[in-house]
Amino acid sequence: MEVGFLGLGIMGKAMSMNLLRNGFKVTVWNRTLSKCDELVEHGASIGETPAAVVKKCKYTIAMLSDPSAALSVVFDQDGVLEQISDGKGYIDMSTVDADTSSKISEAITSKNGYFLEAPVSGSKKPAEDGQLVILAAGEKALYDEAIPAFNIMGKKSFFLGQVGNGAKMKLVVNMIMGSMMNAFSEGLVLADRSGLNPHALLDVLDLGAIANPMFRMKGPTMIQNSYSPAFPLKHQQKDMRLALALGDENAVSMPVAAAANEAFKKARSVGLGDLDFSAVYETVKVVEHSS
Amino acid sequence: MEVGFLGLGIMGKAMSMNLLRNGFKVTVWNRTLSKCDELVEHGASIGETPAAVVKKCKYTIAMLSDPSAALSVVFDQDGVLEQISDGKGYIDMSTVDADTSSKISEAITSKNGYFLEAPVSGSKKPAEDGQLVILAAGEKALYDEAIPAFNIMGKKSFFLGQVGNGAKMKLVVNMIMGSMMNAFSEGLVLADRSGLNPHALLDVLDLGAIANPMFRMKGPTMIQNSYSPAFPLKHQQKDMRLALALGDENAVSMPVAAAANEAFKKARSVGLGDLDFSAVYETVKVVEHSS
Amino acid sequence: MEVGFLGLGIMGKAMSMNLLRNGFKVTVWNRTLSKCDELVEHGASIGETPAAVVKKCKYTIAMLSDPSAALSVVFDQDGVLEQISDGKGYIDMSTVDADTSSKISEAITSKNGYFLEAPVSGSKKPAEDGQLVILAAGEKALYDEAIPAFNIMGKKSFFLGQVGNGAKMKLVVNMIMGSMMNAFSEGLVLADRSGLNPHALLDVLDLGAIANPMFRMKGPTMIQNSYSPAFPLKHQQKDMRLALALGDENAVSMPVAAAANEAFKKARSVGLGDLDFSAVYETVKVVEHSS
Amino acid sequence: MEVGFLGLGIMGKAMSMNLLRNGFKVTVWNRTLSKCDELVEHGASIGETPAAVVKKCKYTIAMLSDPSAALSVVFDQDGVLEQISDGKGYIDMSTVDADTSSKISEAITSKNGYFLEAPVSGSKKPAEDGQLVILAAGEKALYDEAIPAFNIMGKKSFFLGQVGNGAKMKLVVNMIMGSMMNAFSEGLVLADRSGLNPHALLDVLDLGAIANPMFRMKGPTMIQNSYSPAFPLKHQQKDMRLALALGDENAVSMPVAAAANEAFKKARSVGLGDLDFSAVYETVKVVEHSS
Repeated sequence: MEVGFLGLGIMGKAMSMNLLRNGFKVTVWNRTLSKCDELVEHGASIGETPAAVVKKCKYTIAMLSDPSAALSVVFDQDGVLEQISDGKGYIDMSTVDADTSSKISEAITSKNGYFLEAPVSGSKKPAEDGQLVILAAGEKALYDEAIPAFNIMGKKSFFLGQVGNGAKMKLVVNMIMGSMMNAFSEGLVLADRSGLNPHALLDVLDLGAIANPMFRMKGPTMIQNSYSPAFPLKHQQKDMRLALALGDENAVSMPVAAAANEAFKKARSVGLGDLDFSAVYETVKVVEHSS
Repeated sequence: MEVGFLGLGIMGKAMSMNLLRNGFKVTVWNRTLSKCDELVEHGASIGETPAAVVKKCKYTIAMLSDPSAALSVVFDQDGVLEQISDGKGYIDMSTVDADTSSKISEAITSKNGYFLEAPVSGSKKPAEDGQLVILAAGEKALYDEAIPAFNIMGKKSFFLGQVGNGAKMKLVVNMIMGSMMNAFSEGLVLADRSGLNPHALLDVLDLGAIANPMFRMKGPTMIQNSYSPAFPLKHQQKDMRLALALGDENAVSMPVAAAANEAFKKARSVGLGDLDFSAVYETVKVVEHSS
Repeated sequence: MEVGFLGLGIMGKAMSMNLLRNGFKVTVWNRTLSKCDELVEHGASIGETPAAVVKKCKYTIAMLSDPSAALSVVFDQDGVLEQISDGKGYIDMSTVDADTSSKISEAITSKNGYFLEAPVSGSKKPAEDGQLVILAAGEKALYDEAIPAFNIMGKKSFFLGQVGNGAKMKLVVNMIMGSMMNAFSEGLVLADRSGLNPHALLDVLDLGAIANPMFRMKGPTMIQNSYSPAFPLKHQQKDMRLALALGDENAVSMPVAAAANEAFKKARSVGLGDLDFSAVYETVKVVEHSS
Repeated sequence: MEVGFLGLGIMGKAMSMNLLRNGFKVTVWNRTLSKCDELVEHGASIGETPAAVVKKCKYTIAMLSDPSAALSVVFDQDGVLEQISDGKGYIDMSTVDADTSSKISEAITSKNGYFLEAPVSGSKKPAEDGQLVILAAGEKALYDEAIPAFNIMGKKSFFLGQVGNGAKMKLVVNMIMGSMMNAFSEGLVLADRSGLNPHALLDVLDLGAIANPMFRMKGPTMIQNSYSPAFPLKHQQKDMRLALALGDENAVSMPVAAAANEAFKKARSVGLGDLDFSAVYETVKVVEHSS
């Protein structure tokens, strides 16, 4: 099978490498073309431009760093839009907002191309291990066609209906995650200030009904006040803001998420936005100051 | 080894049965003595009164339904206090408030007895399977002595320091759990109202960093509006109230737990207090009404 | 003095009438021209189009119902923009969002016109009585020129700096008001459920440090469950959303406003959006339901 | 008319002085008797003990600093209880919790005395000016008898029903006040961070529907970061905690008050508890710190 792949950052490189290793023919493109070298060593072809990749392949996957890169690859000169056409598919696996996804979708379909948004849950390690969770939405026929690729890149893929639903699903998950991180932080501080050993709390939590990988991974580093950014706090707060806005549109009142969002804002306001989102723990902790 | 066991409700029966099956000699007592029969069939002896059990055994475990039962068994006529003495131990595994635990602790130690509070995390099934998590606090020597019994009743036991710490640890865990249940409920409603399939949300959650047994168990029944009370909402709200009070004592601000507590109160106010705590989902859902 | 006045709704009619009665020459325009008749009886001239009004007057005031009307009057054919020019002023007293205000400001100033946004605090009665509070921002020279008119229409006018600041000031005030309305509603319900007479609470409040016109006016009608919409709940909630967004931009954490916003959302979700914003009281009250 | 007066602190001295100046015969007692001197100069008699005062007077008013002083004056040797009897009245105007008030009420009535709790709203200045608001509850006949005294000490008195209702009314009022102070603080910070002049906000607020004495008095000092304690923050937070507990008893969900309470806790946690409750503003403000 022949697929195109645009964007060879940390995620895209791992994902396209997995495709190559599992028998796919992959034509790759990256803004800095030298990043293609390692893929070429493993058998990839190079496309000179996004348009060239799309021209060559039945469907093309993109994994770009942000909405402006995602738009640029489609709409700029030599972009996807110049070659997309009847029967060709374009799968954007970048994490972008609903507006960006809509714009791309409309442009692709107006040229009779098939479009799928397919943001993923999981970062570097799951990408390397082919263990991503793929949240696809848009053209069902294209989803069906891409299943073999999704099965290599991810441990599970979902087809969620119309374009926008992939992004929404990610927001809902991240909103729950953000509230949980606050609940966890409050619990750690309460334990500590009440004379309990926070490490004991981690052990107890890990044996019970709410044991989960996030508590297990983040707990020990939080206790050490270490917040190397796996998922930056400012991005978590942005997702909570967007999830609350989605709730606002649909008249869903979410007081716990709103309280968590304000805690993340507080953390941003004291300069923690670039640290890991678990740094919200810092604002829950007691800090004596003079005023 | 010879131990006493007071209280053969759902939990106590399962726990004492496990002790019997694993080679312990157990002398049991229950307010309704007929409940001892099944244990006797498996080799247990009967003590006519709590005092009689304590007299006979080096240490005695209690698993009672509430604080008043826990106090009654110790302080009433023929109670534990009449026979507790130098070298004997009393381990209360009931879930009680800090005041009750303190009172019992003081009474036992004033007679030179050893005291351990040891509330458990886990309900019927883990009790039967010997998979409880035991949160012990008080006399370390008694804890060490009881380890063989704890190893049978539970998958893990913790020694948490001074009396009161067991109860506090449970509060912290339940507070986190209560906030998580609200975060989960808000997410389920947001998904549903945004056009996503709540079942898909459950599947996505279960594959990610915040996957946990509670979401897995409660999610499907919540979507069916089924709230058979494993842990009644009014008890969850009471624990959140007590956790917030503990935070107040120690000047810990916990806005997310406070928001969750108010949501549980709202649920109580509309008559959901006796249902499972997951029924807070009902108050998050949109309910059109005329006013 | 000669001024133009665009928009003769409830507010605009009262404001322009006050100008007429106090010696101003006023040229009026309204989409439905027949609404100009009463003003003409009191001495007003009619302009056939917004452009005609602007052509005739040194400066023109607009009081329109919403952002789309505010944009239309400026940008449509025969609109303000066709005649605005060097030395002429345009004062938009409508309540619009910052984007709308910016667009209008840029268009006016690109033609060398002077622009002032000047939203007001106060509704029908203060408009009739010349008791509005005017929150002006933009071109200071135009503000100075308009002071005689502002002094007639309002009891007080403020010059707040650059365009956008008028709208922001209104958001901040309305945000505080929305949180206060929730605090008030919670207090009324708490009083009632605790066995106190809510009317006694109103009397006590009105004698103390937090006595204010809103509690005095809204309290009695709220107790009667009467919510005739002076300021619709959905607009109050929109303003809270925008105020929270403004806080988000500036990294200001506002947990109380966020909680109040979620309460207004809850009220919207149960169908109270078109009632007065005091109807949030309904969602605070205890409503027994079966589920 | 002859009344007793126990407690000559800042409040009690001002209140008893007003009674003297308005024709009452007053017998005073204070723990430090020298504090009676100024009152004696104005015509007061001295009672050597609370019991002596009660023996001499038809009814006795107390204004004590806290619950323990209020209990001590009644129950200690030479206390009120030794002389209270059929037909005599005791009016406790101290601010105490419901439990303390109940204990005193039961003791007085068990001796056939009449009891009235009558906490006040207002501090030093209103006490001096006879402008307190009096929240009385308990024995209606005693209330009627005390009206002439209440009319001198206060601008208004309320009879609120059974003992406890005076304290509850105060809690409700203080809860609303605490939420308002947070709303106000958030608004001030939002204005400042959004480029608005906080002084302009104060001016605008003071002209509108939510204008109130608290904003007027506290606003200017808050902007100067000056928090001389008229009402200490830790007491405000205690009242919010008690109001929330009252809501919990009666199943009233109050998310805005809960959020405000957590903000006050945060302020306590950073060492602001002894400053004025308006110091919660400090925790809302943005404080850059390194962590």
